[in-house]
Amino acid sequence: MDFQTYFPIWPSLTPAQQARLLAGLSERSAKKGAVLHSGGDCTGLLLIKSGQLRACILSDEGREITIYRLFDRDICLFSASCMIRSIQFDVTIEAEKDTELWVIPSEVYRRIMEESAPLANYTNELMAGRFSEVMWLVEQIMWKSMDRRIAAFLLEEAAIEGEARLHVTHETIARHLGTHREVVTRMLRYFQSEGMVRLSRGLVELTDEAALRALGNG
Amino acid sequence: MDFQTYFPIWPSLTPAQQARLLAGLSERSAKKGAVLHSGGDCTGLLLIKSGQLRACILSDEGREITIYRLFDRDICLFSASCMIRSIQFDVTIEAEKDTELWVIPSEVYRRIMEESAPLANYTNELMAGRFSEVMWLVEQIMWKSMDRRIAAFLLEEAAIEGEARLHVTHETIARHLGTHREVVTRMLRYFQSEGMVRLSRGLVELTDEAALRALGNG
Repeated sequence: MDFQTYFPIWPSLTPAQQARLLAGLSERSAKKGAVLHSGGDCTGLLLIKSGQLRACILSDEGREITIYRLFDRDICLFSASCMIRSIQFDVTIEAEKDTELWVIPSEVYRRIMEESAPLANYTNELMAGRFSEVMWLVEQIMWKSMDRRIAAFLLEEAAIEGEARLHVTHETIARHLGTHREVVTRMLRYFQSEGMVRLSRGLVELTDEAALRALGNG
Repeated sequence: MDFQTYFPIWPSLTPAQQARLLAGLSERSAKKGAVLHSGGDCTGLLLIKSGQLRACILSDEGREITIYRLFDRDICLFSASCMIRSIQFDVTIEAEKDTELWVIPSEVYRRIMEESAPLANYTNELMAGRFSEVMWLVEQIMWKSMDRRIAAFLLEEAAIEGEARLHVTHETIARHLGTHREVVTRMLRYFQSEGMVRLSRGLVELTDEAALRALGNG
């Protein structure tokens, strides 16, 4: 499988545009935990071949919150924020699993986008998708209590991993949700007392997904 | 002043595209307080001639929070969310002042955007601008305490109105910020005790903008 099959708008580009894109392309691997992009850098667009990334924002005090995640075939736009003038915020991109990816230089992408309606419209769809995820997040942090958000996070993790035994620390959950470890620990102990999870060192096992779902969707 | 001078990408469209845009256009007025768009409707793009709109989201329980505001020459994209498939959230658009505007039908805009790289790239910039405002909001609600957010809101209002005597109720401030009236009232009374504002019925007068600024930026 090569780049062409991963990049959905490929057939709508002209041969000259395709050639420029390929010429600019580079491959990269990132180990779990590696930071691929931070702050105002213009790293380029990241197209994920395999693996998992998360985009988060950081506070001045070093707190953080996950704003969205990226999986196989996803494209990360905001690691190339210099490409679009009106993007006035910085994200940090971190590998959540060992990840193989392509990097498309911002300037190469921007120039093709300027002349290609298909690529510009595709970029619109990408941005709208991320925008929708951030709007979901706003609704969560405004109107959902932390117990519901933790329940929803555990179910999301179980869906991503395809299993109910999650190797995740309380600290990691707290960083995803933008809260403190103590808050997560207290809530998980409450979940355990209700029979919804079983806790052991570095492990959260979901024992009543239906109850968690009722809580998370509530 | 006509539509052409308000729509910045006008000169980059072909004569045929310009004609289609003009043919689809309609003018509309909205009184202060009127709801111009809500939920999953596809009202069309709104281009503001004069006035002021706000975009907000609503919770199931009827709570709300302002996500951004629109002024003269601004274009509202999310009142035409059917135009872009990946927009998966609903906003409500309300007139904050008597407003004159043009409505561009979503389908007309979408078809031109599909074939016009300049219009598609312009739409990207519009969306990125709103995205940046929502990211700012996420940072505010995650990491700023309510006293700072109220101080920042009062200063923003004073800047918009060009004056320090604000005709705004505690209820209205609460709705903008997604909190309860009681929280706002308590905080404004504290501000008054610190000499930062003077309160009277339906009026908040800023008496120490420097102190409010120090708080709002803190």
